[in-house]
Amino acid sequence: MGESHKKISIRDVWEARKRISSIVAKTPLISSPVLSEQFGAPVYLKLENHHEIGAFKVRGAANKILSLSLEEQQRGVTTFSTGNHGMAVAYVAQKLGIRAVICISNRVPKVKVDNIKRFGAEVEIYGNSQDDAGVRSYQLQKEEGLTVIKPFDDPYVIAGQGTIGLELLEDLPSIENVVVPLSGGGLLSGVALALKETDPSIHVTGVSMERAAVMYESLQARKPVILKEEPTLADSLLGGIGLDNHYTFKMVSTYMDSVVRVSEKSIAKAMGFMADKHRMIVEGAAATSVATILDNKISRPKKNIVLIISGCNVDLSVIHDAIKNYF
Amino acid sequence: MGESHKKISIRDVWEARKRISSIVAKTPLISSPVLSEQFGAPVYLKLENHHEIGAFKVRGAANKILSLSLEEQQRGVTTFSTGNHGMAVAYVAQKLGIRAVICISNRVPKVKVDNIKRFGAEVEIYGNSQDDAGVRSYQLQKEEGLTVIKPFDDPYVIAGQGTIGLELLEDLPSIENVVVPLSGGGLLSGVALALKETDPSIHVTGVSMERAAVMYESLQARKPVILKEEPTLADSLLGGIGLDNHYTFKMVSTYMDSVVRVSEKSIAKAMGFMADKHRMIVEGAAATSVATILDNKISRPKKNIVLIISGCNVDLSVIHDAIKNYF
Repeated sequence: MGESHKKISIRDVWEARKRISSIVAKTPLISSPVLSEQFGAPVYLKLENHHEIGAFKVRGAANKILSLSLEEQQRGVTTFSTGNHGMAVAYVAQKLGIRAVICISNRVPKVKVDNIKRFGAEVEIYGNSQDDAGVRSYQLQKEEGLTVIKPFDDPYVIAGQGTIGLELLEDLPSIENVVVPLSGGGLLSGVALALKETDPSIHVTGVSMERAAVMYESLQARKPVILKEEPTLADSLLGGIGLDNHYTFKMVSTYMDSVVRVSEKSIAKAMGFMADKHRMIVEGAAATSVATILDNKISRPKKNIVLIISGCNVDLSVIHDAIKNYF
Repeated sequence: MGESHKKISIRDVWEARKRISSIVAKTPLISSPVLSEQFGAPVYLKLENHHEIGAFKVRGAANKILSLSLEEQQRGVTTFSTGNHGMAVAYVAQKLGIRAVICISNRVPKVKVDNIKRFGAEVEIYGNSQDDAGVRSYQLQKEEGLTVIKPFDDPYVIAGQGTIGLELLEDLPSIENVVVPLSGGGLLSGVALALKETDPSIHVTGVSMERAAVMYESLQARKPVILKEEPTLADSLLGGIGLDNHYTFKMVSTYMDSVVRVSEKSIAKAMGFMADKHRMIVEGAAATSVATILDNKISRPKKNIVLIISGCNVDLSVIHDAIKNYF
């Protein structure tokens, strides 16, 4: 692995599992009787919302930061995500007692800043856009020796997310289908690597929102493209995949069997459904995988299927509206 | 144990743990950074909302039903609770493939009937009140040999709920305080038995709603009393303790160190708090224990404390209102 862009192997995922075990607890896999009835075969939910930071991102961040040398760790880490990845980096750094600087633009709302500060990270405000904040992160790498922790296009991050795949094989060795929310592709690349390298017949479906699904459009164009961001309930799935993408575009192209998109209305409905039937608050990105079943978007033979519930970090007002419109 | 009203011992709880292990999974204990900050010492949440039926009641029901002889099991079981206990009995019976008849009055709303039917139980509608339904359950015991599964005042049910105490000792051997929602007293009796017989210095606080807290008033009167039910958000805590109470009144009197009551407003606020800060939907009864911290009702020295989150079975409209009023 590393800068030479070597292929990531399932052994890297096993190493990730060992490496992150002191920080990341295994998450539950539960069955969903209601969704099973609707789908016509057993439906399981992989509860990545159960992590302390409320999202799977802690796996990749932990694997990357723990793979740094002690010297690198002591210099600290930086990133420029204001969402789940930023929280994950802050959380892991706090656990290890090392410095983390999260760079954000002056447009980021206070609630997100508070989320990051909650885990003890330094917040540096720089410029007017996420791109500006990214520039500052790379400055910090150059000037102060901090390591930039990329959100998805990094072999250690991908291998970290892949530990979900190993847990699925452990709890449901008969797994036939998996539905994975798709954005930068780190989650899908890791999970699919673990599953498809074990049995290529396991069917991997990616799911995105209809609006500004960058990986989806990139796959259509057969190369990474740039799209203008549009507001969506699945805000965790926003963001580009990078024109200089080294890993995830190729891995998603290789491993993903099918891809579906779900409407904003379906995402909202799935959020209400999860609150009603599973008494669970999930974020829009996580609801996309539930929406594939509710909307009958899965045309696979009726065999067991796992939906990855990727996280639960959502404004209470959004949940409120989703519940209100559900009943 | 049994009809002679022998004292229940911690060994009975160990036996319960072994007995129910095939049906009941251990639940998580998580820390609550926000509540810890407010309390001034570590606050932990015992997530009994994680059971498949969404409430701790499955522990007691499983222990009781599994303790019946094979012949008794084959004849089936009955109860007259429409709430979490009814669901628990239906769920356990379904797992064991035995008959369960849940008797309800014609006043019970359809949504509760559907909840019970979801787990494959027969529903028998009889009379106009819970008391009428109870009469029918005991008729079925006499006429058809079904065993009535009492909701709390039964040594096997108490020992089953007590397995929570063993799990707490396992995960947090330094436990100093526990807050337990209090109604019929089955949960508190079991948990307190396991903890106090291990170390009497562990402080057990019971919590009820202000309205119609039957055990609370019975303790004041030093004997079981009857109160008129009043509507409350903590509806799982409604119901009497029985004038012929054999176990829980005495055990609660013996083991409980202090008891507090929380207002409807505080319960609603705690439900909103749990949705906001822990992304968790909890029922009113579970929220009472959270309310003790939010309202500074715990006057104990600042040492670690466990709040038992007893369940999550609540109408979506109630959660909707709690969230709406929270932000």
